[in-house]
Formats: sequence, C-alpha cells, structure tokens
Amino acid sequence: MERDPSEKSALLIYAASETDANLYYISRFLAPDPFVYVRINGRNILVMSDLEVDRAKSQAKADEVISMSHLMNQARGRGVARPGMPDALDELFKPAEITRLEVPGNFPLAAADLLRRRGYEVLPKREPFFEQRTIKTAEEIEAITATQRATEEAVQGVVEMIRESEIKGDELWLKGKPLTSETLRKLLHITLMGMDCIARHSIIAGGEQACDPHRIGSGVLRPHQPIVLDIFPQSAATRYYADMSRTVVKGNPSEKVKKMYAAVREGQEIGFRMLKAGVDGKDVHDAILDYFEKEGFKTGEVNGRMQGFFHGTGHGVGIEIHEPPRVSSVSDTIKAGHVVTVEPGLYYPGHGGVRLEDMVVITETGCRNLTRFPKILELD
Amino acid sequence: MERDPSEKSALLIYAASETDANLYYISRFLAPDPFVYVRINGRNILVMSDLEVDRAKSQAKADEVISMSHLMNQARGRGVARPGMPDALDELFKPAEITRLEVPGNFPLAAADLLRRRGYEVLPKREPFFEQRTIKTAEEIEAITATQRATEEAVQGVVEMIRESEIKGDELWLKGKPLTSETLRKLLHITLMGMDCIARHSIIAGGEQACDPHRIGSGVLRPHQPIVLDIFPQSAATRYYADMSRTVVKGNPSEKVKKMYAAVREGQEIGFRMLKAGVDGKDVHDAILDYFEKEGFKTGEVNGRMQGFFHGTGHGVGIEIHEPPRVSSVSDTIKAGHVVTVEPGLYYPGHGGVRLEDMVVITETGCRNLTRFPKILELD
Repeated sequence: MERDPSEKSALLIYAASETDANLYYISRFLAPDPFVYVRINGRNILVMSDLEVDRAKSQAKADEVISMSHLMNQARGRGVARPGMPDALDELFKPAEITRLEVPGNFPLAAADLLRRRGYEVLPKREPFFEQRTIKTAEEIEAITATQRATEEAVQGVVEMIRESEIKGDELWLKGKPLTSETLRKLLHITLMGMDCIARHSIIAGGEQACDPHRIGSGVLRPHQPIVLDIFPQSAATRYYADMSRTVVKGNPSEKVKKMYAAVREGQEIGFRMLKAGVDGKDVHDAILDYFEKEGFKTGEVNGRMQGFFHGTGHGVGIEIHEPPRVSSVSDTIKAGHVVTVEPGLYYPGHGGVRLEDMVVITETGCRNLTRFPKILELD
Repeated sequence: MERDPSEKSALLIYAASETDANLYYISRFLAPDPFVYVRINGRNILVMSDLEVDRAKSQAKADEVISMSHLMNQARGRGVARPGMPDALDELFKPAEITRLEVPGNFPLAAADLLRRRGYEVLPKREPFFEQRTIKTAEEIEAITATQRATEEAVQGVVEMIRESEIKGDELWLKGKPLTSETLRKLLHITLMGMDCIARHSIIAGGEQACDPHRIGSGVLRPHQPIVLDIFPQSAATRYYADMSRTVVKGNPSEKVKKMYAAVREGQEIGFRMLKAGVDGKDVHDAILDYFEKEGFKTGEVNGRMQGFFHGTGHGVGIEIHEPPRVSSVSDTIKAGHVVTVEPGLYYPGHGGVRLEDMVVITETGCRNLTRFPKILELD
C-alpha cells in the first residue's frame, strides 16, 4: 500500500510489560497491568496510571512519563464528559498532528478499533517491532550467558542424580526410591530459584514421552532409554532467558538411539558451520533435514503421528524464550548479534527422542557457542 | 450496532496459552507458541502445529484437535498456492457458513486485519470473554486456596525472620548481617518453589519504598517503619494464583502508622461486610475511600506525587493475578462465585505504606475469607 509521506506517524504499544517483551525492551519497566508507550518525533513517552506513575518516573527508561489521569483531565478541560484512553491519547497525538499509528502485530484489536473509529490509521508492523531488539548488545549477551551458566549448574545436579541412580528392573532408583521426572524437576527449579532464575515447564522426559517434543515428562524414569532434558529459565533480575537441551541414557542405549544421537550431534555441527551473518535460516534448517534424510532418518506422519525432525532448528532467545529470528522452514535472514538456539532433534515412537540444543551468537564470519555443558549420551 | 441474526458466528482465539488465560481456561493445554481455538456450533476445536498436535490430542480439553498442516494441505487441494493461517481457517469456517468471528479484546490486530480483508466480520467481545471464567467452581476455589496455603507458609518464614532480627541503630540485622529485602525475597521464592509455586516480583518494601505500591523493595530493612509484604504466587501445577498482603513493623511504629494500620484494617472490614452477590464493586470501593477521608486520610496528588488510597480495592484472582471483576472506581457487578482480593492501602511519604490484602469468595449472602494468615502490625 502506498503511504502519504506528509502524514505523521507515531509508534504505539498498549500492553502489560510483564507479558509484552517489546514494551519491556523499550521501557525497561515492569508492570502487571497494561500501560501506554508512544514514540512521537523520536521521543519515548510512557503514559501510566496513578498507581504506577511515580514508580515509572524513578525506574523507567523514557524521555517522559505522563500520568493518564492528567491527560484525562486535559480532555475534560476541552469538554469531553467521560474521557477514555483514546481521548487521553488525542491529547498527545493532536498537538503533534499525528494521524498514523504503527503498532505491533499483537496490538489489541479492541483498542485498535477505538482509535480507527476516531480517524487514526492504525498499522500493524511486522516483527521485529524494534529491529534493534534482535541484535543483542554486549550487555544483553552477558545477561543471556549468565542465565545459561546458572542453567548449566542446575542441569549438572540433575545429570549427577541420574548418573548416581541404580537400575532396578526397568526403573531408576535413588536413595531407596524410584527416581521420577517430578523429583528432578523440583530439584532443578529450586536450584535455579536459588540463583534468581525462574524455570517453568522444564522438560525431563524419558522414553516414549519424549516423542512429543514439548511434553514435560512424568513418572518414574527408566534405564536404557533416552531421557531428554530441555531447560529454559529466565533470570528474574535481568529478564533474559537461556535455553539448553541434552539427552542422556542411564544404562545401555540401543544401536538405533546411538545412531540417532550421532546424527543429531552432526546435525548440530552442520548448524554451527553454516550459521553466520547473512545466511538464510531456512537454508540451515533444510541442510540439517536433508542430512537426516540421507542418514535414513525420515520426517513425516506415520500412523497419524509426526515423527523424525518436525520442529524448527532454532529460534532467537532474549527477553522472550522464542523471539525472532527463526531458523526453520520459513526464510529469515540471520544477522550479526542474533542469539539463536541450534536444536535439531529426532523422535521415533518405539525408540524415544533425542535433542541437543546450544545457544550461539552470530558473528560476521560464523557463530560463537554460549553453551559449555558437555554432550554425553551414556551415563555410567 | 444491529446484527443480522441470520449470520452465523464462531468464537476465535489466536494466542499462546502460556500467556493467554482465556485460551488456557478453555483448552487446559499449555503451549509457548500461538495456536488457534474456535467454537463452531458449540464444538470446541483446537488447530495445532505439527510440533504440538499429538501432545494436544492427548492432553487438551477439546471436542476436536486438528493439525494446521492438514488444513493447509486441504487449502492447497482447492488451489491456494501458499496457504497461510487465514486459508487454513477458511477450511473450517466456509463449510459451516461462518461469517462473523467473536474474538477477545486482546486479539492480535494483524490477524484480525487479515481475516477482515477476506470478508469476515471480526468483533472484539468485552471481557470476560468466557463469562463462566469469573465464576469459580469448587475445584477452582480449592486450587486458589491451595496456592494461598503455600503462600501463608512461605510468608510465615519471612515474618519470623523479621521478628527474630535485631535492631542495630537504624538497621535490622540477622545472623551477623544486615537483613535485606533481597535476602527475604530469595528465601520466600525458594520456599514457594519447593511447594511448586512460582512467585515473581514479590513485594518486601520498607519505609518510603512502600509509598509506591508496586515497588518490590531493595536494600536493608529498617526498624520502626512499616514493611509491606505483597506475595502473589502461581501454582505451577494448577496455574491458579493466590494474593496476600501484610504490613509489619519491627520495633515501635509511630502513632501515625498505627492509625493508618487501624484505618486500613477497618477499611478491609467495610469491604468484607459489603461484598456479596449483586453489589457494585464501585460502591464498596467508594465506601472505603469515604471512610478514609472521614478519618482524615486524604487521597490525591501532593507536590506532584500521589498519596492516600490511590489504587483499587480489589480484583479477581484465578488463572491471572488480575482478572475480572474489579472492585474499584469503575462500576462492576460482583457475583456469587467471584474470587476477589480486598486490599485497601494508605501511603504517605514521610510515614510509609500500609496495605492489608485477603482473598474472598463471594456468596449470595456475603463473602467467605480464603485467607487465614494473622494481621499483626508489631513484631516483638
């Protein structure tokens, strides 16, 4: 669509920054209820409720913090009987002659309709809303790395417990009790909380359970079967995530599982070799998929169920656990400063799942692995 | 606006259920990436990616779980070269002659525009999207109560540490070290995680810090000043929240703080006495505000800063920490089965903040308090 260049635009977000990463990124202010961000003539302005306005003035990153009730009072002053959010925004937009509002794709429809009804052009902008958000600064990479180190320390505890467990028939036992996904998850989450990191839905899934890549796992863990660990905590302090997956077996893995592991390991290396600034994520993903096919690991639906490698190779990590770019079947240009996961996996009912996942930062000439945790299938 | 009754509507949600409470409520399925929910002719249907479809089939509450790629293939079958989400939805809506889509107010604008462009009427529906979600079942009340009991146990530990601390000049010390908000928050969060509850941004704020009701508090805690504790964890298992606030002083509170505490205590009682099915939340809020005014506790801006009682009296609690209804300056009818907080507070720079918060369930004749934790200002 052609745009009239004489029209003046503003950026607008209306969301709760605890759940909206774009808003937290630009304001560095955490609030549980929706508030307004606008960028007018290059100035970042926050419009806050009475409850939050003073805290925002002292904590938020913004050129100006305005009270919503001040704007509503202004609107009353020009004769609006019961001013609402759009009236308050008029107070900002009209003097600046703003007629076009660029908003994130997830902008709430109800608010967009109200603004359109009073004549604003409201345009959803494709992600990344803030292009710069995908390009991590040194400080952001440090934050992600710190969360990753905490993750590694906590996962080490889990792996040690699996290693120390005893094989009793078809169960793993530790300290006189069956060792369960739940026990390990609890240990992991408490350890991470002690390092001020919040983990949810951590995957500790053995055998068939791991054939659903997002199933978190439950019940007693079993010997001779791959156990997938996929842990993605968020630092409560910095709000930056890390993401890591490992697969381990206590006992003797089958030949098939050993081959799956070797293929996934090599799939990851293909990713590491190909990833650099300018590459298309789709080319990386396709190369891994092709390699798996060549090695005899087919992907597709069998008996009504997906098997093989049926998720993306990777995703950006930052203030969100899944953020742009994607390394997947959809084209997406990888740039220097992106932090992405490289996490091929293979899943075959009857054999189980294998996934390995590291985080890398993209450079002009390649990528640098932020993950240090060893990759060892067999725990003896 | 008049609606043509011959037009057929469906409900539609497109969101990630980990952050969208309506979608989790109706599907009871947790996923980190957006998926589709539709209700057509009273049937609840989920449309899932290849990654999630099998897990959804085994875990989700739905009449039907459909694979997004199946729908895309169907669209290809009728000649769509590169089908997207709207093409997949056409496969569901066209055969059922659906032309109108009712969506939540937070429905993503970008998706709404795509659907409108192909002729659907997309109508944001006012919250509560699912009216039934505000009316808690016995099972939901049990889940909220269980989270509340964990909260009480964890807060007990924090209060004991403040009680056991020593007054050294203008600081509280415990075990040879200054006692800080951070230390107590960490203990609290680890204790809660041990009970499978996730707490974030828990408020442990002393003195001036507590004058911003959402400031979480930092640094060493001080004697003779009110310390506000506001804890609102979510059960990782049930996803139901609890919410409780208490205010304590180690040492001797000023006469002003004692009066503030007594007023807030009585403000809460006014709430408990008035709350029952059919009452307007605004009437309850106004009664408390009036009582505070009458007792000499004024609300408003002084020297550019809000003071007094400048937040709502309460909010619904469930799968979200803040959900409908509100007990605030905006009218909202309270119904039997609502679970709401009752949390008046008073904040005066130079004196500090006082807030007390319980959760109650509304009945036909009154309300029942779900909170058992004692209210004691002075810890000796």
